[in-house]
Amino acid sequence: MTALLPEGFHDRLPPFADAAAAVEARVLEAARRHGYERADPPLVEFAAALGSRLKDGALTDAVRFIDPISQATLAIRPDLTAQIARIAATRMGHHPRPVRLSYAGSVLRLRGSQLAPAREWRQIGCELIGLDTVAAARELVGVAVEAIGAAGASGVSVDFTLPDVVDQLSTVLPVEPERVETLRDRLDAKDASAVAEIAPAYLPLIEAAGPFVPALARLRAFDTRGALTGRLDGLAAIAETLDGVTLTLDPTERHGFEYQSWLGFSLFVAGAPREAGRGGTYTVVHEDGREEAAVGFSLFADALIAGAPRPERTRLFLPIGTPAADGLRLRAEGWVTVAALEADDTPEAQLCTHRWTGQAVEAVA
Amino acid sequence: MTALLPEGFHDRLPPFADAAAAVEARVLEAARRHGYERADPPLVEFAAALGSRLKDGALTDAVRFIDPISQATLAIRPDLTAQIARIAATRMGHHPRPVRLSYAGSVLRLRGSQLAPAREWRQIGCELIGLDTVAAARELVGVAVEAIGAAGASGVSVDFTLPDVVDQLSTVLPVEPERVETLRDRLDAKDASAVAEIAPAYLPLIEAAGPFVPALARLRAFDTRGALTGRLDGLAAIAETLDGVTLTLDPTERHGFEYQSWLGFSLFVAGAPREAGRGGTYTVVHEDGREEAAVGFSLFADALIAGAPRPERTRLFLPIGTPAADGLRLRAEGWVTVAALEADDTPEAQLCTHRWTGQAVEAVA
Repeated sequence: MTALLPEGFHDRLPPFADAAAAVEARVLEAARRHGYERADPPLVEFAAALGSRLKDGALTDAVRFIDPISQATLAIRPDLTAQIARIAATRMGHHPRPVRLSYAGSVLRLRGSQLAPAREWRQIGCELIGLDTVAAARELVGVAVEAIGAAGASGVSVDFTLPDVVDQLSTVLPVEPERVETLRDRLDAKDASAVAEIAPAYLPLIEAAGPFVPALARLRAFDTRGALTGRLDGLAAIAETLDGVTLTLDPTERHGFEYQSWLGFSLFVAGAPREAGRGGTYTVVHEDGREEAAVGFSLFADALIAGAPRPERTRLFLPIGTPAADGLRLRAEGWVTVAALEADDTPEAQLCTHRWTGQAVEAVA
Repeated sequence: MTALLPEGFHDRLPPFADAAAAVEARVLEAARRHGYERADPPLVEFAAALGSRLKDGALTDAVRFIDPISQATLAIRPDLTAQIARIAATRMGHHPRPVRLSYAGSVLRLRGSQLAPAREWRQIGCELIGLDTVAAARELVGVAVEAIGAAGASGVSVDFTLPDVVDQLSTVLPVEPERVETLRDRLDAKDASAVAEIAPAYLPLIEAAGPFVPALARLRAFDTRGALTGRLDGLAAIAETLDGVTLTLDPTERHGFEYQSWLGFSLFVAGAPREAGRGGTYTVVHEDGREEAAVGFSLFADALIAGAPRPERTRLFLPIGTPAADGLRLRAEGWVTVAALEADDTPEAQLCTHRWTGQAVEAVA
């Protein structure tokens, strides 16, 4: 029993833990070069604070416990975006806008879902607080795609969605207010007959989903009264900067975009069984109730390394008695050295690919 | 209230979060070059497992919660060493010995102490499982000192202790068994009069503490019956490889070395208010009860960056309409670029030190 881990948790062993750390470092370096500076909030916050920082961003499935010091309920973060929003709104509230921040950290959920049973993962991302314009969204999608490339993943695709499409359309295709949420759920589930029952005018949204260019054309043809013009022009402007990326558009996808405002997107890479990241625009709520627009994305290191080739392991065995200066020089040349600590140690026992003879490096047969 | 964090938790903001990440990467790179491969255990384990993996290593002050899936008590790790020991003993149980592993991760405690009020910090370290010999300890202390240097800290000092000194000495200076724990506590507290009350023969241990060479000489003079010869020879052999490092020896220091076996050490750097790390030898307990010797160290990034100079911030402003190819080239040259997203944006508003004119980089006055 003590050898096992609870369901939804796992160890990363060599060489995959090194690979995951390298992916994370490359993503953050790509972001840094675009002016995103790192922020590192704690694992734990007041539960009330974590759940109120993002408009429509409730705190769900967090591990909570009572703080013996304050007697308040604390929560382990299930997501980093709300924490970055808090930092931008409070401690960096007087920083000129937009604020560009990056982060990498572990997040924890009390329960996994059937599709995503993991209860802990590394969330790596960027948030731009102060703008949610097309120009801002274009920068974030571009940085995300560049960061994925820097991490070594290939075959990137971006799936766009319009989280407020029903709100926009309802100005011209009225829906009874008490049915809006049901309509959203049925559109998200792509349940055409259920949509037809309550709002048949919305059916073309389901049929529009697919490769970006034809999907956009179908939506423009459907949107005869121009309720979506701003949204569709924005999507077109973002898409035109993304060379060599597969683009799709699913205007009614909502699961996972509960707090996004006008734009959402999912990121996929070749060889990964699940999405490699997601992002979109959202609204930060300040202490005084003021709202501020923002846009960001998060990537998941495990998806980025899935399908990547197993890293090569080169290890140089230093026999017992090797002078310290030799080891120092060989490491400076780039070798990973493994020193024998007992007289009968061998390169084979230490999983070494090479051996130091005292004069030269020799491959182990 | 939502702007505040619970006591003992803090945000790292730019540029310190970047500095801390850089320190961590440099420490792990120094370890990697010595053959330490990274392992990354989860934040959460079965509480029973976390508390039983290290001999004499009870699980104290962990945040615990009931797992809704297994109904077992889970704990957020307050320390990573027990997890690395679990990996070495189970999933890497068939790996040839010694196993060299490195790690970096957040650890959490339910309560801080008066001296160390933080309840969360980053633990970065190395463990070598399979040996606790002088040669093994020498490697670990050496890697720790090298890693601290690689992280940019200076003025390193190492304070050695002998966690089992009372057990060793009691073979020649008998202590009533029920008084051993009290004696250890009084020696740890350096309470000479309290030690004199129950075991005056042990007083020279308190007086011996100080700079390494004279302290070792005093202990050798005191140890007329040779009960400590093995320990003192081991310390001397470790110390002789540490050039340019200040060494001290406090044989009775025990606080923080509860599970260490024959050797413990604390690491300090110039300018840091508290210790920068600690380590020592210990015993791993396998599933079948078998025991395995090990040695390791942990460093704390916050202490390593305290007193380091504030990193310089160079940011290049790209006016609106700058071609994407210009930005790409400037970033490839090493610039951090910050793109204007609105027509009236200025280098000053984006905290930029430089501006791209379209042809050249210009310093912002």
